Amino acid sequence: QDSAAGRLKAQACSVCHGTMGVAVHPEAPHLAGQPAAYLETQLRHYRNGQRQHPVMNVIARPLSDSDIENLAAWFASIRVDAQGR
Amino acid sequence: QDSAAGRLKAQACSVCHGTMGVAVHPEAPHLAGQPAAYLETQLRHYRNGQRQHPVMNVIARPLSDSDIENLAAWFASIRVDAQGR
Repeated sequence: QDSAAGRLKAQACSVCHGTMGVAVHPEAPHLAGQPAAYLETQLRHYRNGQRQHPVMNVIARPLSDSDIENLAAWFASIRVDAQGR
Repeated sequence: QDSAAGRLKAQACSVCHGTMGVAVHPEAPHLAGQPAAYLETQLRHYRNGQRQHPVMNVIARPLSDSDIENLAAWFASIRVDAQGR
């Protein structure tokens, strides 16, 4: 996995998911700090249509396996702190 | 939405997603701070089978609409900070 390559590739994601994986679209999930294994699985499912979303299926279709690993590595590398109220 | 009721209901989620929505299972996503609209959509899709996951489909099936709104309100209420490297 090459998180630097993933960060470059992730420019296409930023319109909805934000430049640092903090979503700017109310229907889009934050990706920052998500487990790489989860992100890889979801991108593969969007690519093969097992998970359906009109935008994400189009975005994921041209991704290579290494694109997916790099994107997952990048978003997983962003540090996140959660605080309850 | 009643985030306090959602917090109680979320005890069943904590085995994988953590008590504060920070996942403790490597294949499970963090839920803390996710947009409520996103969380509601995903729970509805798990409930009706549009999104497939062997555990989540079983967990979501008995949820009422208000359960879903409350759970989404609870996880969305957890404050998250993301920091790039």
